[in-house]
Amino acid sequence: MKEFHSDKLVVIGVGLIGGSAAAALRRAGKVKRVVGVGRGRANVQRALELGVIDEAMEDAATAVRDADAVLLAVPVRQNERVLAAVAPALRPGTLVTDAGSTKQDFEAAARQILGAHLASVVPGHPIAGAEHTGVDAASPNLFQGKNVVLAPLPENAPEAVDRAEAMWRACGARVIRMAAAHHDRIFSAVSHLPHMLAYSLVHMISNRPDAAELFDFAASGFRDFTRIAGSSPEMWRDIAMANRDALVADLDAYQAEVTELTRRLREADADELERIFQAARAARSAWLARNQAK
Amino acid sequence: MKEFHSDKLVVIGVGLIGGSAAAALRRAGKVKRVVGVGRGRANVQRALELGVIDEAMEDAATAVRDADAVLLAVPVRQNERVLAAVAPALRPGTLVTDAGSTKQDFEAAARQILGAHLASVVPGHPIAGAEHTGVDAASPNLFQGKNVVLAPLPENAPEAVDRAEAMWRACGARVIRMAAAHHDRIFSAVSHLPHMLAYSLVHMISNRPDAAELFDFAASGFRDFTRIAGSSPEMWRDIAMANRDALVADLDAYQAEVTELTRRLREADADELERIFQAARAARSAWLARNQAK
Repeated sequence: MKEFHSDKLVVIGVGLIGGSAAAALRRAGKVKRVVGVGRGRANVQRALELGVIDEAMEDAATAVRDADAVLLAVPVRQNERVLAAVAPALRPGTLVTDAGSTKQDFEAAARQILGAHLASVVPGHPIAGAEHTGVDAASPNLFQGKNVVLAPLPENAPEAVDRAEAMWRACGARVIRMAAAHHDRIFSAVSHLPHMLAYSLVHMISNRPDAAELFDFAASGFRDFTRIAGSSPEMWRDIAMANRDALVADLDAYQAEVTELTRRLREADADELERIFQAARAARSAWLARNQAK
Repeated sequence: MKEFHSDKLVVIGVGLIGGSAAAALRRAGKVKRVVGVGRGRANVQRALELGVIDEAMEDAATAVRDADAVLLAVPVRQNERVLAAVAPALRPGTLVTDAGSTKQDFEAAARQILGAHLASVVPGHPIAGAEHTGVDAASPNLFQGKNVVLAPLPENAPEAVDRAEAMWRACGARVIRMAAAHHDRIFSAVSHLPHMLAYSLVHMISNRPDAAELFDFAASGFRDFTRIAGSSPEMWRDIAMANRDALVADLDAYQAEVTELTRRLREADADELERIFQAARAARSAWLARNQAK
């Protein structure tokens, strides 16, 4: 596996993910110069102050002109706009990769906008993050031991995929390759669905006439269950929209599961309730044990 | 408010809650002697070894004969059996209280079984606990700063309610009084419902043919969302059964909420999705801020 190196890396969207990637690559000595591009002047200035980037630019096209690697780390519905902006300015061979939580939409946008550059466009998704956002939450350790999924295109040059993989390895991550549609089905179930469910619970409680009293008695179980409802509404709107088909199917499947549980409860089927709880707890314990063993 | 003191406290069910209450009262110097009664010989022996109780007994009736206070801390569906066992042996005036997560069922069982003793039966619910169970997880600090709900009966002697309140205050808790039905509606929404939802998600994922791969990519958001699915299946079977009516209503209301969200997603109504997520995040942030201010 070849090493990653970049003379000029452009990070578009210098938030938690973009900022952390820049910080990790800098610490690993893999980048000579990092240019940050962002909508929020304050956030990009802050990234400069923190030393996460070397230079701040407002215009993405100007920034990427002499770059050898470009990382898009913006809410996923902005990828199309950003790709359109940089398309005319990209040098042949410049690696373009992204950090979005959905991959089919990025692939489709790349095909539509960067048709001539597809050999070097490698969709990616680092499985890291938190409900905290912005460059102030960024850390060079964010990807340490975490998974990064790459969803290479058939058109990709093997060297481009290897380079993207080496970039994330340099950040401390393990890299797994799979097709975009496969990725989106997996993350619909284990990530996008729970976010929808957590937002729904808090929304439901907050709309009840007795909301204030309910919140007064909500405790640590509620806090952890709803932690992901503290995530960025814009980011999750975009993810939900981008992975709509898989997510609607999983929401329907989940409702069927809850309908069945409710039926058992209505029928006072205590044995079946205990069996369901027991099976769930066992599956979760086994998962935790496997994760600790890694 | 009078002080709590007990010459002989009997704790029936020496697990996390019963063990922690015994440890807290002992540390506060409020109990002369604590007798533990439990199904699991090993668990009660362990409580003895840990110094959480002074004496272990197998027969609840024998244990309570000369007690002045009795705390039931067993899975709630066992309360009926335990109350029937101790009923003939209770001295008049002995405080009987419990730590169950549902209160209408305890009230009904007390009315049916302890009719002659109702002046001294004070239903209670400490809002503390974790997915960890058993006396090894017990701590005298478990109730520090936590809420305890008492659901006094109209038949209660005011001194009995005051004594139960003083007992929990001595454990470091804040005590709130409310009717049993009101309690059960609140905790259905903020505690019992999230438990059902977390168990359902893990159960659904674990039954999918690609479960192993799904779990491989589940990350910290999934871990926190499903933490409460690590809770005791027996305990939660009992709670669900005991609070069936309120819980079925809340499951139905939640399903309606998710159906609406799914409809918006199906219609690609990005604005409404963002509004829902935003409202949920704002409500949760306000809740966290209020809790920190306390």
